[in-house]
This record gives sequence, C-alpha cells and structure tokens, in this order.
Amino acid sequence: MASRWPERVRIREVGPRDGLQNEPGFVPTAVKLEWIDRLADAGLTYIEVTSFVSPKWIPPLADAEEVAAALRRREGVTYAALVPNMRGLERALRAGIDEAAVFMSASETHNRKNINKSIDETLPVLREVASAAKAAGKTVRGYLSTVFGCPYEGAVSVEQAVRLTEALLEMGVDEVSLGDTIGVGHPRQVEAVLTELLGRVPPDKIALHFHNTNGLALANTVIALQMGIRTFDASCGGLGGCPYAPGAAGNVSTGDMVRMLHAMEVRTGVDMTKLSEASAFILQALSRTG
Amino acid sequence: MASRWPERVRIREVGPRDGLQNEPGFVPTAVKLEWIDRLADAGLTYIEVTSFVSPKWIPPLADAEEVAAALRRREGVTYAALVPNMRGLERALRAGIDEAAVFMSASETHNRKNINKSIDETLPVLREVASAAKAAGKTVRGYLSTVFGCPYEGAVSVEQAVRLTEALLEMGVDEVSLGDTIGVGHPRQVEAVLTELLGRVPPDKIALHFHNTNGLALANTVIALQMGIRTFDASCGGLGGCPYAPGAAGNVSTGDMVRMLHAMEVRTGVDMTKLSEASAFILQALSRTG
Repeated sequence: MASRWPERVRIREVGPRDGLQNEPGFVPTAVKLEWIDRLADAGLTYIEVTSFVSPKWIPPLADAEEVAAALRRREGVTYAALVPNMRGLERALRAGIDEAAVFMSASETHNRKNINKSIDETLPVLREVASAAKAAGKTVRGYLSTVFGCPYEGAVSVEQAVRLTEALLEMGVDEVSLGDTIGVGHPRQVEAVLTELLGRVPPDKIALHFHNTNGLALANTVIALQMGIRTFDASCGGLGGCPYAPGAAGNVSTGDMVRMLHAMEVRTGVDMTKLSEASAFILQALSRTG
Repeated sequence: MASRWPERVRIREVGPRDGLQNEPGFVPTAVKLEWIDRLADAGLTYIEVTSFVSPKWIPPLADAEEVAAALRRREGVTYAALVPNMRGLERALRAGIDEAAVFMSASETHNRKNINKSIDETLPVLREVASAAKAAGKTVRGYLSTVFGCPYEGAVSVEQAVRLTEALLEMGVDEVSLGDTIGVGHPRQVEAVLTELLGRVPPDKIALHFHNTNGLALANTVIALQMGIRTFDASCGGLGGCPYAPGAAGNVSTGDMVRMLHAMEVRTGVDMTKLSEASAFILQALSRTG
C-alpha cells in the first residue's frame, strides 16, 4: 500500500471563534486582536476571528464589530466570521469580513436545538446568505456539524451528510467543513464517510473539523490525508469543544496537528515557535479571565 | 483506497513490567498481583508481569520471584517476563514464567547505554537466552528499541532495524516488538519502516510498541493496522515511558487503544469496564506509593 502524502496542507484556524465561544469569561477585545495578529504572524493564512451570531447567544464574542474593525490586516490572510442569517451577514459585511461561514447540522435534532429550525427550513436561509455574500464579493464556508455522530440521535446517516454537503456546494458555498462535533468519529468511519463523499464531491471542496474527545483527532486526520483531503480545521491551544462535556478535550490543537504534519514532511506554512508563543499567550490570558 | 481492517487484534499488556519499572515508589507485591489478576479478568491474554533484570537496576521490580510464584494463573493467559541474560533466564524459568522477553536497541549508542554492550556483542547473548528458553519449552519475545529514533543518535536506519529483526527471528524469537522508545515516530515513518520490513518478514511475527509522547500513538497504530500488523503493545493506564522526559506521555494506554479498536469494530477480547477498573485500581495505588 503506497499512500500518497501531500506536499502541503491548508490549516483553517478557528480558535478565536470556535475556541472562545464557550469560554466562561470575556476575553478583552485587545487580547483577542493581539492573539489573532500573532496567529497571522505565525503563518496561518485563514483565521476565523469572530461570530455574528446574536451577542445574546454568544456573549464571549459580543465584540464582533470591534474585533473586525480593528484587525491589523496582513496580506494573504483570510479573516472569516460565523454568520447565522441575513442580519448577521449584514453586520459582517459592514464590518468588512473576508469570508462568511454559515452553519447547519447533519442531524435533525441537533439542527433544531442549535438553530431552532428543521434542516429543510434551514437550507433556504443559508442559500439566501450564501448568495448575498457571493454577490458582495465574499467567499463562503459551510459548516456541517454532527457528521460523525449526534449527541441526541447517535449515528448519523452518511447519505444525509453527503446530500447536505452537495446542497451547500450547490448554493455556492466554496468549502464545506465536516464537523465531528462531539468527537466520536474514528478512523474507519472517516474512511467510510469520505469514500461515499468523494465519489460525489471533489476533495478540494472539503475540510475536516475534528475534536480530540477520544484522542483520535490526529488518527482521523491521517486517514483523511490518505483519502485526499488537504484542508483541516484546528484551534490554537486546543481551545473550544463541547461545553456539555467538562474536562473533555476540545478542538484538535493547531500545534499538535502542525507538529505531526511537519514531522511527516507535509508543509503548512506555519512557524511552530511563533504558534507555540501564540498558544501560550491566549492560555495565559484565559487563566486571568476564566 | 479500500483499506482492510482486521476482525481482531492481539494486545500485549506491558503495564506491570514496562509501566512500573520507572515508578519512584515500590508498589507492594500484593497490589501488583491484584492488578495483574484484574488485567487477566478484563480479557487480556498476554501480560508481561515483571522483569528478571537485576533488582539492583530496577528496584521497583525487585519482587520478580514473588510475583511470578504467586500469580493466580488463568487458562489462556501468557504470563511473560523480561530477561536480560542467562542468569535472568534461569531465575525466570525457576519462577515458572511462560514467555521470556529479550531486548536490545536498533541504535548502537542506546544499546551500549542500556545493555553496556555493542549490538554485535549483544546478539550472541540473546541467541543463547533464546535457545535455552526454547529448549525449556518457552516462547520468546524480542524487543527492538529505538526503531523510530534514538535519544542519542537521532534518526535510526530502517535497514538496521530490518537486519536486527531478521537476526532476532533467525535465533528463534517468536515475535519481535518494534519500539518507538522515545515516542518520535510518525505515521509516514511507520509506513516507510513497515514497507521495508514486511517485504522481508511476515506481519504475524511483528508487534508494534508505541509511546504517546507526541500524541501520535493511535495515529501510528492505525497506519500499522492498514499495513497488516495485528499485534500491539499497550500499558494499562498509559503507565511507563521515558524516565528522562518528565511530564511526557508514556506508553500508549491500553484503554485508549482498545476504545479505538472497538469503535472501529475490531475485536480485542477486552472488557472495557473491567479494564477501566483495573486502570483506576493501579492509578490509585500509585498515588499512595509514588
């Protein structure tokens, strides 16, 4: 078996949004901005910096406008933000964000709990947002959650995940990020899902978003690499993850992922020293505010 | 790419020897015996229970004779012990151990530091031990350390690892365990080493022994599974590992490995509940003696 390992992989840094959104304390805007700038300085070319979901729902990111407005923009870096609906998109566009990230779940119950709509009711909303974002000259990312398991329903049908990925791409989404929201995915499952999916969707449209709940995020990443996936979400410091599983590991850590990839001679463009410093910076800040 | 996942994998539980040998405190013999019995009760069919290296070098395992003599033997379980030389083998045989495990390193410097002999001087010693063990009707395991990297020399030649594996098998060793002693191996390297090795040695003669220093033990295991390896070492509670890397993760935890394999529908024969209880038992005991 001669696997093909890629020369290069794209990392989508989601720490400033996905990592901070469940933090109990409010991280000062200036700290967020310095962290984001350190991440860009470390060579990360895609950073999800905040969320334009209502501050009522995500108080830790209530300063979305301030963060977006004060970004020290670097050339070649995409500054993205989560956007739930047209109102969120309008705020994001006024704030000058580069990419809008829409989201939904592959399982009906999680989608209802998270978005308060059925999957069928969600699709037209995302379509409207995606079209408007594209019309405004922005790129669009689509998060599909609970692909590898739902906290309410358990197993999620691969066919459903593939169908929704196709629906997102069909509405103009540039990249779909398949999320293992509760961290139950395992290598054999990753292989099975990707075998189905990549029969119908090109690999360069897909990113994978693993959580390290069971310590399998890197094992899952390796299988996805073998299957041809070249884009992975990660969170500096491993921040984030499910707020309902205290003590559980969260998002796969950007450092762990980059360290593995570099050992495997896969380039990421990331400077490990600067990334470690960025990680230490935010962990120290959180120990003050948490 | 259609990987073949096995129906079943063999776990070699090394916790009572490899896990305890670097512990600062002495674990009472009765505690060791209860732990070993709990491991057998959890369905582990191979347990390395102690070491017949001189107690001068490994004080935590100074009760090797007592442990071996008092084992509550269960049918179908192999009780193995580490054996450095003829004197160690004689002790192990008198103690009625089922399998003798000899050891050496793939890198010259580590071998000299660990065994005080060159690799060429070590091979005849191991040959004598292996022959005598076989003549006494025992099976023999051979540990080959530092296959994926040496703390003194850095990179280790794959050709050297393959040559020494062949030498061990040729002297009658039944199974060679390739060790990532300092936990620097990564999936691409595992693939490269196994590609060379399995061109010359059948996979059922090989076990892999990973450490989780960089969080890659399970990712490495997945690649080895894909390559046809069906036997893995693990340590209950993740005990053990390099005494010179404080805070670093040690041996891959049996629980983490079994949990992954069961999720992947690979059978191990291990009862996860009982294994977790065995892990809690020894961790609690260590918190009293450490």
